[in-house]
Amino acid sequence: MSVATSESFQATAKELAEISRSFYARGWVLGTSGNFSAVLGREPFRLAISPSGVDKGALTAAQILLIDEHAAILSEHPVKPSDETPLHLMLTGMRAAGAVLHTHSVWSTILSDLHANEGGLAIEGYEMLKGLQGVTTHQHREWLPIFENSQEMDALAHVVSARLNELPNPHGFLLQGHGLYTWGTNVAQAKRHVEILEFLLEAVGRTRMITANSQKGV
Amino acid sequence: MSVATSESFQATAKELAEISRSFYARGWVLGTSGNFSAVLGREPFRLAISPSGVDKGALTAAQILLIDEHAAILSEHPVKPSDETPLHLMLTGMRAAGAVLHTHSVWSTILSDLHANEGGLAIEGYEMLKGLQGVTTHQHREWLPIFENSQEMDALAHVVSARLNELPNPHGFLLQGHGLYTWGTNVAQAKRHVEILEFLLEAVGRTRMITANSQKGV
Amino acid sequence: MSVATSESFQATAKELAEISRSFYARGWVLGTSGNFSAVLGREPFRLAISPSGVDKGALTAAQILLIDEHAAILSEHPVKPSDETPLHLMLTGMRAAGAVLHTHSVWSTILSDLHANEGGLAIEGYEMLKGLQGVTTHQHREWLPIFENSQEMDALAHVVSARLNELPNPHGFLLQGHGLYTWGTNVAQAKRHVEILEFLLEAVGRTRMITANSQKGV
Amino acid sequence: MSVATSESFQATAKELAEISRSFYARGWVLGTSGNFSAVLGREPFRLAISPSGVDKGALTAAQILLIDEHAAILSEHPVKPSDETPLHLMLTGMRAAGAVLHTHSVWSTILSDLHANEGGLAIEGYEMLKGLQGVTTHQHREWLPIFENSQEMDALAHVVSARLNELPNPHGFLLQGHGLYTWGTNVAQAKRHVEILEFLLEAVGRTRMITANSQKGV
Repeated sequence: MSVATSESFQATAKELAEISRSFYARGWVLGTSGNFSAVLGREPFRLAISPSGVDKGALTAAQILLIDEHAAILSEHPVKPSDETPLHLMLTGMRAAGAVLHTHSVWSTILSDLHANEGGLAIEGYEMLKGLQGVTTHQHREWLPIFENSQEMDALAHVVSARLNELPNPHGFLLQGHGLYTWGTNVAQAKRHVEILEFLLEAVGRTRMITANSQKGV
Repeated sequence: MSVATSESFQATAKELAEISRSFYARGWVLGTSGNFSAVLGREPFRLAISPSGVDKGALTAAQILLIDEHAAILSEHPVKPSDETPLHLMLTGMRAAGAVLHTHSVWSTILSDLHANEGGLAIEGYEMLKGLQGVTTHQHREWLPIFENSQEMDALAHVVSARLNELPNPHGFLLQGHGLYTWGTNVAQAKRHVEILEFLLEAVGRTRMITANSQKGV
Repeated sequence: MSVATSESFQATAKELAEISRSFYARGWVLGTSGNFSAVLGREPFRLAISPSGVDKGALTAAQILLIDEHAAILSEHPVKPSDETPLHLMLTGMRAAGAVLHTHSVWSTILSDLHANEGGLAIEGYEMLKGLQGVTTHQHREWLPIFENSQEMDALAHVVSARLNELPNPHGFLLQGHGLYTWGTNVAQAKRHVEILEFLLEAVGRTRMITANSQKGV
Repeated sequence: MSVATSESFQATAKELAEISRSFYARGWVLGTSGNFSAVLGREPFRLAISPSGVDKGALTAAQILLIDEHAAILSEHPVKPSDETPLHLMLTGMRAAGAVLHTHSVWSTILSDLHANEGGLAIEGYEMLKGLQGVTTHQHREWLPIFENSQEMDALAHVVSARLNELPNPHGFLLQGHGLYTWGTNVAQAKRHVEILEFLLEAVGRTRMITANSQKGV
């Protein structure tokens, strides 16, 4: 039996579709924005991934594609995978993530613009940081790198990969004017990372609304 | 069989009613604000449109009217179509839109006031822009014209039409202190355009909350 | 058959309970805040009203009380009506409202504080104003009077009534640090007035977040 | 029959799980943040408490643990109780609370940072304060102490307890960059206190967004 018809693919596709609809309800993947993937096997490499250009509030398990490490479609779908597949392949390949979730929230969009010149955004001192894999204290300082947005996804994946390799234990990054990428060893952990980072970006953004005049930067 | 009792009218009416209730849940059509239409045929011209003065959180498919190009009601409804029917007829007629959706969000209301003196609002540099029909890069600059609000809908439709004809590929416009109009080749595309433009207006508005002091304008 | 067991009382109680739960979902009646009433008859006067001190997110039709013009309970309930019953009796009696809805939103609370010194808040130029009964143009100017909060409800009702009598066609008022009162000829119209006024207060409040520095006042 | 299989434990576990999911929907316990407990008996002491590290949007009654006054697990669960159990035991033990709810909202996080230097935050003049147990007028002044966050929960519980003993009738406290703790004689009262304090923190925070420039402090 092929992976495309396996129970584990069906279960993972259902999990991704449910996350899509719940993120849509929160306003994190409006329009056709956002994309999601999860690794089903490594030898051979098999990735479940959301298709390009669909309404994320209506995404169903049946629409989730199965692709290989070259982005070739192995399931019977007449559509192509997300345009941002090279970023998903880089994160699940070189960085060994088990799942990758990409959201377009208002707060990640705003902060990715306001901090673009600094090349990233530091978040520290929040208890919520402890929800990130491997973080054990609120005194942790998370550096969220920000990359210039691009429509050249292969080149962008290369730049992002090189920068992430320089950081000790990164949990996500921002694309300027675009949104947040995060990942985890499995879908549940990646979902937790989205919620934590989106929460922290909102806390940082709203704090700046109050403190914008007395202090520049956060 | 008349269009008013056809399956395609029933399906479109259901689609518009579902959009109405989901937009209401997001706070985009509170009270009796907002109105929605979709073209069912062009020869003769047939338009499904929401009635005037109803609670958009409780709109049902059975309440959707069928009208012709003169706004004459063809379905058996004792009510009149939306007061803003002339704008819908202009957009679906002269501009050939397949569906028109009009929302009253807090952000479109605020920004339509703050930028009224400039005659419009430019939105550029956001990945989310790519969800607008025909836009292929975040480097796109969308000009959202703002018109003075009016209760003279025929005159307003004339002014809006003339201005839209001067723009290369407009996707929407704002009425001052009133809200957003957008459209698409079909209901799904128009819904996507609402979500994208509402998202971008929120991002622009919240950014101004942070940057209001250091820089005037966005 | 008494009014307390009549179908119209059951239907009205259900309507008020549904509004309570939907307003709770929007964050307008958190905790045990907010109260709601609707007139069932005038000769003799009969009012359906929410009880004191209950969770508005869990309010059921069975909890709605029936009272007379002296606030005497006519239904078989072991609880007392809302502490703010005198305001409901004043609005449904002297002002002849058919239904009264009182919400505690964040925006009404904030603006009732910031504008208390001016004795009220003017809202004008918004299309949404047209949803208020009797208003036909966005050029309408709605004056929302603000009263000092009090725990002496009979005295407060007297003060509010006297002030409302001086205004041409008031649709609501604010109690400082407390919330919004609005009403209508029936429950549906009062609900529409809540949505419209809450929307407008949010629009005014968020606008002030942007313009707070360049201009004082709205 | 043991408490762990009793109907009252099942009912309380269900109540805590429902609160968890509703708070998650409001964005107050994203990721795995937040924890909840309720006293089932005092001789011997028995506490129902949420487990460590679970998704609060998917918490079920079956996941709620039963522990004694030493945090020993009496139910058959392979997991440990919340890391913050010492705070729950202190509040339900020394302070005799019947239920304790801890949330991580954006507003409590922001204000716990901005007011940390003052050791707390005063909230006064709001009608909503009347929903706090024992408060009968909006003229009440609630002092919400803020404590430095720590991963040493036993030591933190000691510091918090000592400070709360100095206050007349405290209803909650903030941990810096972390969130809100509140409690009540039962689960329903504690839930009401969460809603009231979260509402008030949002009102205070948003007011500061408007007034940040003209006046420092609230």
